[in-house]
Amino acid sequence: MIGIDWGTTSFRAFRVGRDGEIRDRRMAPKGILNVPDGRFGDTLREEIGPWLAAGEDRVLLSGMIGSRQGWKEAPYLPCPAGAGELAGALVDIGFDWARVKLVPGLSGIDSSGVAEVMRGEETQVLGVPPLLRDGGVACLPGSHSKWVRVEGGRIVNFTTHMTGEAFAALRGYTILGRMMRDGPTGGAPFDAGVARSADPGGLLHHLFGVRALALADRLPESDAPAYLSGILIGHEVRAALAAAAMEQAAGMVVQVIGAPELTMLYAKAITACGGYAERHDGEAAARGLALVGEHAQWG
Amino acid sequence: MIGIDWGTTSFRAFRVGRDGEIRDRRMAPKGILNVPDGRFGDTLREEIGPWLAAGEDRVLLSGMIGSRQGWKEAPYLPCPAGAGELAGALVDIGFDWARVKLVPGLSGIDSSGVAEVMRGEETQVLGVPPLLRDGGVACLPGSHSKWVRVEGGRIVNFTTHMTGEAFAALRGYTILGRMMRDGPTGGAPFDAGVARSADPGGLLHHLFGVRALALADRLPESDAPAYLSGILIGHEVRAALAAAAMEQAAGMVVQVIGAPELTMLYAKAITACGGYAERHDGEAAARGLALVGEHAQWG
Repeated sequence: MIGIDWGTTSFRAFRVGRDGEIRDRRMAPKGILNVPDGRFGDTLREEIGPWLAAGEDRVLLSGMIGSRQGWKEAPYLPCPAGAGELAGALVDIGFDWARVKLVPGLSGIDSSGVAEVMRGEETQVLGVPPLLRDGGVACLPGSHSKWVRVEGGRIVNFTTHMTGEAFAALRGYTILGRMMRDGPTGGAPFDAGVARSADPGGLLHHLFGVRALALADRLPESDAPAYLSGILIGHEVRAALAAAAMEQAAGMVVQVIGAPELTMLYAKAITACGGYAERHDGEAAARGLALVGEHAQWG
Repeated sequence: MIGIDWGTTSFRAFRVGRDGEIRDRRMAPKGILNVPDGRFGDTLREEIGPWLAAGEDRVLLSGMIGSRQGWKEAPYLPCPAGAGELAGALVDIGFDWARVKLVPGLSGIDSSGVAEVMRGEETQVLGVPPLLRDGGVACLPGSHSKWVRVEGGRIVNFTTHMTGEAFAALRGYTILGRMMRDGPTGGAPFDAGVARSADPGGLLHHLFGVRALALADRLPESDAPAYLSGILIGHEVRAALAAAAMEQAAGMVVQVIGAPELTMLYAKAITACGGYAERHDGEAAARGLALVGEHAQWG
């Protein structure tokens, strides 16, 4: 079968064998925002036409391709849900070259009753073997980071943190940006920001401290973005570990899924906050798509 | 004497009698950013010329007028400092119509060793009688809110929170702004935001929840700015109360100083977070200037 993680800015296709092995892959900057006039079918033929010609005819799509801005809207499925529930709620795309189906996103409510939604992350989470086997907590960093709890092979709830987007707004449109220029994203300044997030006073005080340190000549301009990033990621990780941990905060294992440069930063922050991090790259999506595909009725 | 609170965007002058009573006042939108070509002396003559002509010749200035962007730079005085220390560190402006002196700002370090500075707020704090008499905690809301601890008539330390500026950046330059239009600043949505700030998950999660509630049609666009404001002010107040309280968080009295529409919101948030708030308007600056003026050597 063919599994495609089709997001807002990227298109990542995997050809998967019956044994679950990835046989081939294609990446393209053809996210749904970059496909003109909603010509998703044409994009699909351009990218995976040779695989279809070679006999594949089962295609499973996950991610924002199933949103209102995508090819066809797949309604959110409520938590808890695992591969079986997702496979039972696939949406057929009605495409003439192959059987193409959409994996729905998930909806949930946080511990205070506020609604949450995700599209694409559910499939990546199901592609991480230790989560399926033992349950646990996953973190998917990004503009809108997700923290996901898995029990008995199903996603039971999740929360979203606006960390990446807050970083961009604070850097771009506050006084903090004036004391920054591009520099390394990790290293000692990032660690110092994560450590700072444990101090009293709260995030809004720590943000102002970026300026205070710069004014006191204690934070070089090229270190300041990494320091700010450390403060924000540190606050996210501390709050998410505390909320996810219930009784057992210290030593909690977090499966971090995403691009290597970002999961490395989160792994450092999780370790600094008393947890253990295991890192997984975006190919988790391929395994998750294969698992849902196995449960599906292809007709 | 004449006391002037001369900030970035506003000029507020008070004529104060020997008994400390305010005899007259003048307000103008002539903050230091609005005075062309550094013509501060001309502005002073335009605004308070008649008082000088009537015989006043002691003029004390506080606020950003003493910054590098102001008339003359008055170096920061380190905490702890009260009216006596401030009066001993006045900077003479060298003006030919009257004796004009600048009150210096204060510098401090927060509990984690990060430097803090203020200009103008120190004078307002010293103009609040219960703080001078009993000590305690003051809150001065704004783009960069200050929380100030007073003991024995002196400011011993303070912290800054980037709340107002963070609100503007988040509203103006993130996805949250797309689900907002102007509405009332207080009321039930503000209270709901303050309550939300007590939930698990942290500020970055609560920010994303603004979007989640709006998507679920549970937050009208005109309520969303007040809800976001409540979340941010709630987080500031909770963290500042916890940091300031040491042993005695519940029931702590906070003296809130500033414009009435803003001190009302902060008083509501402080009450919701378990403290007691007493409100004071910007005329605290006049009393603080008079107090420093009494301690000064006018020569």
